[in-house]
Amino acid sequence: MTELQKMGAAAQKAAAVLRTAGEKKRTALNAAAAALRARQAEILAANEEDLKAAKENGMSEAMLDRLALTPARIEGMAKGVEDVSVQRDPVGRILSGETNPKGLKVEKITVPMGVIGIIYEARPNVTSDAAALCLMAGSAVILRGGKEAFRSNNAIAEVLRDAIESADLPRDSVQLVQDTSRASSVELMGMTEYLDLLIPRGGAGLIRAVVENAKVPVIETGVGNCHVYVDASADLDMAQRILVNAKCQRPSVCNAAEKLLVHKDVAAEFLPQIAAALAEANVVLQADTTSYGIISGAAIEGLDLNHAAEEDWDTEYLALKMGIKVVSDLDAAIDHINTHSTGHTESIIAEDYAAIEEFTKRIDSAVVMVNASTRFTDGGVFGFGAELGISTQKMHARGPMGLREMTTTKWIGYGTGQVRA
Amino acid sequence: MTELQKMGAAAQKAAAVLRTAGEKKRTALNAAAAALRARQAEILAANEEDLKAAKENGMSEAMLDRLALTPARIEGMAKGVEDVSVQRDPVGRILSGETNPKGLKVEKITVPMGVIGIIYEARPNVTSDAAALCLMAGSAVILRGGKEAFRSNNAIAEVLRDAIESADLPRDSVQLVQDTSRASSVELMGMTEYLDLLIPRGGAGLIRAVVENAKVPVIETGVGNCHVYVDASADLDMAQRILVNAKCQRPSVCNAAEKLLVHKDVAAEFLPQIAAALAEANVVLQADTTSYGIISGAAIEGLDLNHAAEEDWDTEYLALKMGIKVVSDLDAAIDHINTHSTGHTESIIAEDYAAIEEFTKRIDSAVVMVNASTRFTDGGVFGFGAELGISTQKMHARGPMGLREMTTTKWIGYGTGQVRA
Repeated sequence: MTELQKMGAAAQKAAAVLRTAGEKKRTALNAAAAALRARQAEILAANEEDLKAAKENGMSEAMLDRLALTPARIEGMAKGVEDVSVQRDPVGRILSGETNPKGLKVEKITVPMGVIGIIYEARPNVTSDAAALCLMAGSAVILRGGKEAFRSNNAIAEVLRDAIESADLPRDSVQLVQDTSRASSVELMGMTEYLDLLIPRGGAGLIRAVVENAKVPVIETGVGNCHVYVDASADLDMAQRILVNAKCQRPSVCNAAEKLLVHKDVAAEFLPQIAAALAEANVVLQADTTSYGIISGAAIEGLDLNHAAEEDWDTEYLALKMGIKVVSDLDAAIDHINTHSTGHTESIIAEDYAAIEEFTKRIDSAVVMVNASTRFTDGGVFGFGAELGISTQKMHARGPMGLREMTTTKWIGYGTGQVRA
Repeated sequence: MTELQKMGAAAQKAAAVLRTAGEKKRTALNAAAAALRARQAEILAANEEDLKAAKENGMSEAMLDRLALTPARIEGMAKGVEDVSVQRDPVGRILSGETNPKGLKVEKITVPMGVIGIIYEARPNVTSDAAALCLMAGSAVILRGGKEAFRSNNAIAEVLRDAIESADLPRDSVQLVQDTSRASSVELMGMTEYLDLLIPRGGAGLIRAVVENAKVPVIETGVGNCHVYVDASADLDMAQRILVNAKCQRPSVCNAAEKLLVHKDVAAEFLPQIAAALAEANVVLQADTTSYGIISGAAIEGLDLNHAAEEDWDTEYLALKMGIKVVSDLDAAIDHINTHSTGHTESIIAEDYAAIEEFTKRIDSAVVMVNASTRFTDGGVFGFGAELGISTQKMHARGPMGLREMTTTKWIGYGTGQVRA
């Protein structure tokens, strides 16, 4: 048995206990939150070492910022674990049922997945976030974090494991892979015998690598090339408010808008207005030929306007940058989106009922917003509480993945001696 | 573009139309059923050629029987298509929703998958079954049937395509892969750009090959190493009735029982009784040491009793054969099942409430039956109507897969200008 197989077997043993752990899960999470606070010093010390090594290896400022922990960030992690602990237990919910003519009663009930693997990058907060969600969903978790954050992750994982054990649940409910070489990721992706589910959390490159190579079931989360379509019938002031919010309120996240499509009938009026607003927010514009012509004609001060290249339409910028295109009609907008979107969130701004119905029906993405910001795609807004990410795939879970989406179901049939004729 | 990629692109185009096809789907299915009846002669002629070639290649009697079509079997296929056409449309059902404090209303609605691939063996009836289910679920389908049935499948597919076109839906809603070499299966399994879902229908070997090799999302169906556990508290007459039904009523299907576990406290009483009943039904017994001792001591006439080998516990016989084992207690039964089961269906026969609760909670299979035959795991019994198979995986669908399980969901948010603070 390899080290990872041993971890898989230990996780399965832990999962068998977690399956019926009930309220002990909350006790464990509360103990974990308290321990994160109480043992802050050792976590910060481990993080200090990670940061030192990362700086020596020339890590970028943006990545160093993600890697760095502070007392406030550890408090945020503890609070995050507590937020999960007050959620409704997703296990044991009876979803539906049927009594057959012979009196056999069948019910469909939520049950834990079993063992979940999480592959992520150098963000230590994912260690406690993901572990808390998996535990509350009744599953054991095997965490494979980025090597640059290994010392931090290990310190956090040990704090969590101690707390879980103190609540009389198996220590191996949470395990951190100790080998951070590429080989361990590859092995994890093939562990069909041990893993019920594997979730990559991170950038587009990581997610693609996992989806392409994994043999175990995967849930794809978080890549968002989100579109806002401004229809000919749109309230243009509303369109501007929504677009500026969708693009600028938090440009680094997956539900930020990346592309603006404008109906040709309102392009001449709307484009100069929105370009000025975006210029004021320091948004760089990548415009198609038609929109470039209209916007450049408006001579907006301080505007960074460029010609869009073909690859712009498929790019998630995660920055103050936006692709702009004029479309001839609603059909063209829908076709463009269904061709280039990553299937996360698209908004239509329109007052025409038929256009709205057409757009919501034909767009093939996880979330379609009508006259609202793409930024609302979020577990909290959808009534889920905590979320693990936004699924952009069609299997199992689509859109925000809360605790409920981290469970599976089982059917139980209650009979009194029935046989099949 | 390869031939399969062209089919994939054509399927995506068809899927875009099917997404909003509504009642036209029923019209197409009724036309398909009528056409299967009307064009029976050409289907039978194609089947005749398949049968001739298969006989020349030395196909077994059992496989020839599965390949063979008759007027009655074609009538069965037509009836099957009609059964699907009267189901409730699985698309457009609003499953849940939420209004956030700002008045943004979000709803979760069922939508079609898009493009579904089906890989199956030499059973021509799967062509019409699978095509009808996919169409009613609003998805285009790419069928890859076994090469021995190619002429039959092609004749059936052409009848279906003509009927679909006559209902003003795209002919390419149903496509049959023309290349039946191994290469086409392999290519299909990797077509992440075109396929939303791939479902293997057939024996354990086919399913394992697809699960191991596919990059596209797969739903695993149909392998059942089902157990019946007879508890110390069981009504033994009921246990016998259920076990004989579960084993013998239709031994070739995935929900037939393959293993009997008996609590040691009732083994001496129950085993001779059940062995005699199974002997009468010509069931071969593969017994562990303890049960072998008890059963052989009973000197039952005409009984074919053998010592079980270790691999018996992991084998789906699909025949009049049963593995028998005495277990020391409920825990041992649960451990044995969770170790050896394929996760399909397990039954407990018991009157003790605590034992039943323990068994239903801790068994990690798609379906757990209490005092009822394993044979009840079936879409019809569970209130689904038609089914595509029994999912033994945890992702997306578990247990019978009806039309609803062949769809995905989408969130639609209805706002009036909301932005995120």
